[in-house]
Amino acid sequence: MSPFRPFLVCGSAHFLNPCRKLHIGADGMKSSPDAAPQRLPFSRVTEEDLTFFKKILPGRTITDPDLVEASNVDWLKSVRGSGEVLLRPQTTEEVSQILRYCNSRNLAVNPQGGNTGLVGGSVPVYDEIILSTSLMNNILSFDDISDLNVSLPGILTCQAGCVLENLSLYLADRDYIMPLDLGAKGSCQIGGNVATNAGGLRLLRYGSLHGTVLGLEVVLADGRVLDCLATLRKDNTGYDLKQLFIGSEGTLGVITAVSVLCPRKPRSVNVVFLGCETFEQLLKTFQLCRGMLGEILSAFEFLDSECMRLLNTHLKLPNPISDCPFYIVIETSGSDPDHDAQKLHNFLEEAMTSLLVTDGTVATEDAKIKALWSMRERVTEALTHDGFTYKYDISLPVERIYQLVTDMRQHLGNRAKSVVGYGHVGDGNLHLNITTPAKDPAVLAAIEPFVFEWTANFQGSISAEHGLGLKKRNYIYYSKPSQAVALMGNIKAMLDPKGILNPYKTLPDNL
Amino acid sequence: MSPFRPFLVCGSAHFLNPCRKLHIGADGMKSSPDAAPQRLPFSRVTEEDLTFFKKILPGRTITDPDLVEASNVDWLKSVRGSGEVLLRPQTTEEVSQILRYCNSRNLAVNPQGGNTGLVGGSVPVYDEIILSTSLMNNILSFDDISDLNVSLPGILTCQAGCVLENLSLYLADRDYIMPLDLGAKGSCQIGGNVATNAGGLRLLRYGSLHGTVLGLEVVLADGRVLDCLATLRKDNTGYDLKQLFIGSEGTLGVITAVSVLCPRKPRSVNVVFLGCETFEQLLKTFQLCRGMLGEILSAFEFLDSECMRLLNTHLKLPNPISDCPFYIVIETSGSDPDHDAQKLHNFLEEAMTSLLVTDGTVATEDAKIKALWSMRERVTEALTHDGFTYKYDISLPVERIYQLVTDMRQHLGNRAKSVVGYGHVGDGNLHLNITTPAKDPAVLAAIEPFVFEWTANFQGSISAEHGLGLKKRNYIYYSKPSQAVALMGNIKAMLDPKGILNPYKTLPDNL
Repeated sequence: MSPFRPFLVCGSAHFLNPCRKLHIGADGMKSSPDAAPQRLPFSRVTEEDLTFFKKILPGRTITDPDLVEASNVDWLKSVRGSGEVLLRPQTTEEVSQILRYCNSRNLAVNPQGGNTGLVGGSVPVYDEIILSTSLMNNILSFDDISDLNVSLPGILTCQAGCVLENLSLYLADRDYIMPLDLGAKGSCQIGGNVATNAGGLRLLRYGSLHGTVLGLEVVLADGRVLDCLATLRKDNTGYDLKQLFIGSEGTLGVITAVSVLCPRKPRSVNVVFLGCETFEQLLKTFQLCRGMLGEILSAFEFLDSECMRLLNTHLKLPNPISDCPFYIVIETSGSDPDHDAQKLHNFLEEAMTSLLVTDGTVATEDAKIKALWSMRERVTEALTHDGFTYKYDISLPVERIYQLVTDMRQHLGNRAKSVVGYGHVGDGNLHLNITTPAKDPAVLAAIEPFVFEWTANFQGSISAEHGLGLKKRNYIYYSKPSQAVALMGNIKAMLDPKGILNPYKTLPDNL
Repeated sequence: MSPFRPFLVCGSAHFLNPCRKLHIGADGMKSSPDAAPQRLPFSRVTEEDLTFFKKILPGRTITDPDLVEASNVDWLKSVRGSGEVLLRPQTTEEVSQILRYCNSRNLAVNPQGGNTGLVGGSVPVYDEIILSTSLMNNILSFDDISDLNVSLPGILTCQAGCVLENLSLYLADRDYIMPLDLGAKGSCQIGGNVATNAGGLRLLRYGSLHGTVLGLEVVLADGRVLDCLATLRKDNTGYDLKQLFIGSEGTLGVITAVSVLCPRKPRSVNVVFLGCETFEQLLKTFQLCRGMLGEILSAFEFLDSECMRLLNTHLKLPNPISDCPFYIVIETSGSDPDHDAQKLHNFLEEAMTSLLVTDGTVATEDAKIKALWSMRERVTEALTHDGFTYKYDISLPVERIYQLVTDMRQHLGNRAKSVVGYGHVGDGNLHLNITTPAKDPAVLAAIEPFVFEWTANFQGSISAEHGLGLKKRNYIYYSKPSQAVALMGNIKAMLDPKGILNPYKTLPDNL
């Protein structure tokens, strides 16, 4: 096998813990070094290994570099690994065989779902074997207790590789919805969603996956299958082991199946797009909204005028209302269209009368709802057209979230092309994005650790929903005390003593 | 120190894993042996130990047997330990000092909250030191972001020993509620609630503590303080360690502080008490209710006519409606009293017209709401007056939950005094209770493992919300595969290598 070619665009210039020896790729290109630790002494894939894989996965052991390429590069094209083998198992048993073998051979494995992650967690760093769940896309059961016509919230059980949007479509036909929704829904897989504890647009209403995932099946590093695939709402028989794997980013086991509690499809959905003059007015609108929309509020999202400019410029999406410094997307979901409309009407009247919002538009039809939502959902896409993007995903006390954008804009001055803020107001979660015409280490050095120090100063989280992956693993101490990080290391050592699962990710180098 | 006097009323007669040598108490009384394993070789408390404890907890190191007595016996008076030392720390630092000392001395520790558990998890089995959190009852902060008048759901941070009802009262003044509510609210403590992953009456609406607990502070067995006391809705910086401790019943660490997401107090609450002729009609009523009450439904509970008989007989609580085989308690919580009333009216009209329910009464005033709720909440209390009670807490697919009661009634015939079923229909959670005039090993042998086998046959959980504690630890294999139990053992060994924390609980003897 040819030598690995590590390549990392997004590095970290400033960190408490000095990085190890720079790595120079085999092709002579100097890698951006800071965030990539040295390759660990895993075995390299041999012809014998390939023979084994081809035997258990005939036709699904991919080694053609052109075919493996897409799995080596993340969605943002910000990190690139040099995996040479892509395995596409279809069953839990196959995953188990793969891991048992890799563990015995000391071969590193990069579990991969839809490869939509934003922190470099989903692609190899060096020559890790890529274990894709894409062919594990069967729905195993959906329990809507239809034989008795009893509508408990439906419980969906499926393989890890099911694409989120496909699950949503499947459920829509049965009058249910998934408890999570995110911009990447067309590609992301439920296994990856769970492995990264994805948040998204419905968290405000339905809570996190720690609450809505009822069961998991996980293959451990040594190939043991851990069956925690319960489909019960309540089960207090011992430790809730599945919780360990939710948000562990593939470092503790490979999730092969998921059961999840799915809410009923709301009979009535409304989306409102509003404009505000100040962020304080936006927060007051949120307060009013919580009080007056109460139990039917299902999303409260925001974007700033810089986001709108990028949507206009790069995606040709016109502003549905007049220009404002801040925009809000509110969604309501309820069981009675008349009641919902009345609550919404009262809220909008009050928001307009008290001058909290300056303009707005309401959608009740699917097409217009989709159009309004795209103003929020497609900001990420617009950013990719604006230049090289530095992405930050911050949890803060809600009253602080926009202050970071303002401070960053001032801090960077004209060194940045765009500094934009958007995100989930209801969850206190800001997506701060900065672009430059091309990758610029000096700008990166100006952003980091400034952004992390700012966040830590207000007891925020440096990763609200994106995870740590490769890019942010060494910044973990800004949000987690060392005792906690040490315990993470103990858990990793217990479940994956050889460290073969998604190495270089989530855990800091200095463990 | 005098020798220990183990005493266990509720034992298990039939289990796959044969129990160890019988233990004979020092007073010569033969203990009910089956569920109590032999005392493990922990150290015994010496005068030197007491000197140390008295130094760090002056006036709060209790050794007077009369004062320690209440902490040795569980609420049901079904298990009794022989702890001789009761420690009442006030701070996390004190808990840390205690555990560091006990760990170094190999002294076993029984963490104790409100001592309202139902599976013998909250009292010593032998002479474990009782570490009570009762004096750790300070509210540390409540964040309703009032300075900006922004009403995110409030985030409450408090010490573990706060009594649930006190927290509810504190929040009520601030227009919030706790996300959980249970019959034991007047005594149970939030730390114990979290340690046992308490379910209760609001789970249907607000989900489990795995979703609503935002942060925990935990003292580990060796005295290390693990600070995971985040107050953010979203934080994906590494493994969600707090989840490990939710539901671990004090075997992995002592929870010293909790932060929890508290919903806004609903502006409108209604409670309905209904009667049904059959359980199938009750389930159909539930279906109708979910559809028509939708997002305002906050509880759907049931009790059978046997429960009603016990409430009438032992507590003199009159039936608020005419006699029926089944009763339902429905609660709605919403933001608009008119809308809620209209939804409820439409639902009741439909339920009556379609003959699903035969009688009913509605309450909107606090006193009547409380009265109706007490018909459900006080069943446990009524049972204690009926005789010796065998308690089972089962999760099942909802269409099965009453079949177990019927089968059990038939199975036991006239050997049981009462066989009653009640519980949380919305969560698929049945409380099956059986009474006999006095403790009767023959009846116990007829119940167990029958009840567990029946449950396992339908992929249910043998403990939906009560936990395993002492009484059910060896039945864990009915609901958890051996791989999962083995992993529990690994986690226990990692966090508490000497096994000093709540020994004989939760984990099976044969690990």
